[in-house]
Amino acid sequence: MEQLRTTSVELARAARASYRAGTVGPTSGVAPGLTQANLIVLPRDWAFDFLLYAQRNPKPCPVLDVSDPGSPTTVLAPDADLRTDLPLYRIWRDGRLVAEVPDATAAWTEHHDLVAFLIGCSFTFEAALVEAGIEVRHMADGRNVPMYLIDRPCRPAGRLHGNMVVSMRPIPAGRVADAATISGRFPAVHGAPVHIGDPELIGIRDLSRPDFGDPVRIEPGEIPVFWACGVTPQAAVMASGVPFAITHAPGHMFITDVPDSAYHA
Amino acid sequence: MEQLRTTSVELARAARASYRAGTVGPTSGVAPGLTQANLIVLPRDWAFDFLLYAQRNPKPCPVLDVSDPGSPTTVLAPDADLRTDLPLYRIWRDGRLVAEVPDATAAWTEHHDLVAFLIGCSFTFEAALVEAGIEVRHMADGRNVPMYLIDRPCRPAGRLHGNMVVSMRPIPAGRVADAATISGRFPAVHGAPVHIGDPELIGIRDLSRPDFGDPVRIEPGEIPVFWACGVTPQAAVMASGVPFAITHAPGHMFITDVPDSAYHA
Repeated sequence: MEQLRTTSVELARAARASYRAGTVGPTSGVAPGLTQANLIVLPRDWAFDFLLYAQRNPKPCPVLDVSDPGSPTTVLAPDADLRTDLPLYRIWRDGRLVAEVPDATAAWTEHHDLVAFLIGCSFTFEAALVEAGIEVRHMADGRNVPMYLIDRPCRPAGRLHGNMVVSMRPIPAGRVADAATISGRFPAVHGAPVHIGDPELIGIRDLSRPDFGDPVRIEPGEIPVFWACGVTPQAAVMASGVPFAITHAPGHMFITDVPDSAYHA
Repeated sequence: MEQLRTTSVELARAARASYRAGTVGPTSGVAPGLTQANLIVLPRDWAFDFLLYAQRNPKPCPVLDVSDPGSPTTVLAPDADLRTDLPLYRIWRDGRLVAEVPDATAAWTEHHDLVAFLIGCSFTFEAALVEAGIEVRHMADGRNVPMYLIDRPCRPAGRLHGNMVVSMRPIPAGRVADAATISGRFPAVHGAPVHIGDPELIGIRDLSRPDFGDPVRIEPGEIPVFWACGVTPQAAVMASGVPFAITHAPGHMFITDVPDSAYHA
């Protein structure tokens, strides 16, 4: 067991080293068994508003760790550098996406007091779904998970407001309850679905046109199941006109040294 | 069921009204079935450090709600006034306890931007213990729960540091596993014990001299069981020399309108 654990941490380290060296690509399926995290980095002046936004909206924004101001490190992977070890970053100014870059070192120098927030990711429970015999379509098809900005507002905090972003997985009708139960055992990484079935009820007009990520096949007999998504902070950055932020690019997550099982309730 | 629920919320309202009118006394057993919360109020300048301290130490500091700066209200009991509706408050200056008062209105006027944090309380799972036939000694004996400052440091955050405070309940050896399992189902209100058995291992020399609250009887065959306690923020206020804070007095909690069952995982 200890051997297994050591080996998978080495996979996480190798993946981060590869991203640091310039590799770009979605992280779904990379370093299986290790928790992946969403990233949002804000100046210290915005850090309380954001941490409060996360506290008030724990399903889309479950906080796994917060760096000290100015530090690009995290207890979730002590040897990692958050400026370089994700495959792809987004730079935001005044709520607008201005660049996607494979290295955030230059952007990180613009403020001396940046605070990095690592937010849970639904990839953590996908392995448990697969283990239960539930196909995760975007993994099976080698695509990025489809994500949608829905019409449900998050509870605002200070200067931050915005709607929720959800990820969608099509699940055979007979396994939807299982998928809800299994994901519900991981409350620290979005937990149970926020919506099951009719997309229009949450303001999604066309499943084939996600706001982030790739569309996926929906087979006859499958129901679209929606989970709160860690891209929600990016929607808040946009809606609130945050002056400066660095985030991961959707689907291009931070790979930690923490096993998925650590977030099993 | 709806009738029952309405009635118990009325008990919570009546208790708050009584404290507002000047009644002073511990809240254990008051408005049964309604969640009680620890209170810590800090100037906005300290709010990020504290919210981060809570995020990094979720067992002793599970955040149930945070007020907007300057607002003495909470979603946990929309008609309550946090300045008056607790039975007893403590006022802290430069890390020292300077007063205990039944009304915090005057202290609250000293800063325009106070932020109130409501932290989960182990009283929430006590009803579940009693329901399972496990006597909760301090309730049975009509005393305040005994609390101890232990030698285990919390993870620091910004300017805040300090050791953990634990509450203790003596449990018959044959029911300790049950007590751990039952409380573990309430992760948002301290969850499972942090220590079971030998008090010296966590730096407690004399169980009969708690740092907060009252000592309780320990009968032959009973094991002391220790849970993380929401008085931990007061220990951080002391250890860190926080310039100004208002807290509840230990055992004199804020009674919310939220049923205990809401925090059952």
